[in-house]
Amino acid sequence: MSRYKLTIEYDGTGLAGWQYQDNGLSVQEILESAAKKLSGIKTKIIGAARTDAGVHAIGQVAHVDFDKNWDPNRIRDGMNFWLLKDGASVSILTVDLVTDNFHARFSAIERRYLYRIVDRQSFPALKHQFVFWTRHKMNIENMHNSAQLLIGSHDFSTFRASECQAKSPIKTLDRLDVIRVNDEIHIIACARSFLHHQVRNIVGTLCLVGWGKWTNADVLQALMARDRSKGGATITSKGLYLTSVVYHQS
Amino acid sequence: MSRYKLTIEYDGTGLAGWQYQDNGLSVQEILESAAKKLSGIKTKIIGAARTDAGVHAIGQVAHVDFDKNWDPNRIRDGMNFWLLKDGASVSILTVDLVTDNFHARFSAIERRYLYRIVDRQSFPALKHQFVFWTRHKMNIENMHNSAQLLIGSHDFSTFRASECQAKSPIKTLDRLDVIRVNDEIHIIACARSFLHHQVRNIVGTLCLVGWGKWTNADVLQALMARDRSKGGATITSKGLYLTSVVYHQS
Repeated sequence: MSRYKLTIEYDGTGLAGWQYQDNGLSVQEILESAAKKLSGIKTKIIGAARTDAGVHAIGQVAHVDFDKNWDPNRIRDGMNFWLLKDGASVSILTVDLVTDNFHARFSAIERRYLYRIVDRQSFPALKHQFVFWTRHKMNIENMHNSAQLLIGSHDFSTFRASECQAKSPIKTLDRLDVIRVNDEIHIIACARSFLHHQVRNIVGTLCLVGWGKWTNADVLQALMARDRSKGGATITSKGLYLTSVVYHQS
Repeated sequence: MSRYKLTIEYDGTGLAGWQYQDNGLSVQEILESAAKKLSGIKTKIIGAARTDAGVHAIGQVAHVDFDKNWDPNRIRDGMNFWLLKDGASVSILTVDLVTDNFHARFSAIERRYLYRIVDRQSFPALKHQFVFWTRHKMNIENMHNSAQLLIGSHDFSTFRASECQAKSPIKTLDRLDVIRVNDEIHIIACARSFLHHQVRNIVGTLCLVGWGKWTNADVLQALMARDRSKGGATITSKGLYLTSVVYHQS
């Protein structure tokens, strides 16, 4: 048996998210189907992050075991052949042979997300499936300042979905930057792991700051309330990207 | 009567191009429908460039006459309200009141296009509707050098679609740059006006150079042949963007 690390890109539009769902097609299902068509054997593919329905990825990581020792590039090209045939919303960027103790989910030491916002009067015709759009210009300095209050280890219950399965609401946020890139606002969030909807709930809250409705004090108060009803709304998934997953050298 | 200049963005995917067509929905039709819903009166909208089916725009320009003197921002927001309701593939970025002698098509002194290519082994899952994808790494220095041979006034018959309605095949190409931007190749083409399919036929030819199949001499020979059959293939419309239209100060 040989274990392979896959780095994966996907357009989450219309997909049910990473994990198998009864009500729609998942990224995992699409990938396992391509792996089966390539190898002839049903095999499980484990992802680093269980992205929500509609969330995109430019650097999701997964691992898969094959009973034969294939050339990694042959796996990439073979799986991509079937993925492209099946509709081209999931693409494998790289495949690397790894040791058996590599685990896409449990070996990961950091997940990095990007959230894209367009704040302008006219709706974005060319990227309406790929950004959150708001008519109101945002104050990104205030958003960035508020974001810094959330850095570090906290009880993030205010930003946790009710269906979250994590044992503890305490997480450590390593980075939360708000920057302007051309005509977009980019919010970059990095942590070892996130609670369910944590990034979307934090971004929804930072939008309140960007629109001038909330101050730093409001954000702190929301965090300390440890109560989902005190945080901002869960922002749409279509602006969210899993950009990379970091591992120790393996 | 008041004349307005509209600057327009659109996702050309699935559209029949700028101009009215029997076999599909055009950008012109979508815009005229929104203008009618706003003003109550059927009105014609004249575009600067008749983009092909599938071509995108981030800066198409058009003009429209309304019998009332509306606030330009009210036209933008009112038309966008209907455009968004109708499916969000066309958005009006700005509206300006102009003098009656402004003509979106005939007053234009330059059209600027961008062509986007992704040259990598894996297909681009996130932008497959927005770029031309080739597995083979392209030599952009060679492409740029060949492109410079096409600058200036030439008989561009080799790059002209058979259905082109221009009186003369002679056009003046002001700029044709090939550059790498992150993981994409961008080809920027500027001229007062273009022949039908000229940009797509030129890009198709430059790809032959990028892949190492053609040399500068081949490109020159093709140009001088003045024969469409001697040029490269017409490249897919989905990588093409009308980026801006230039006018004298009005």
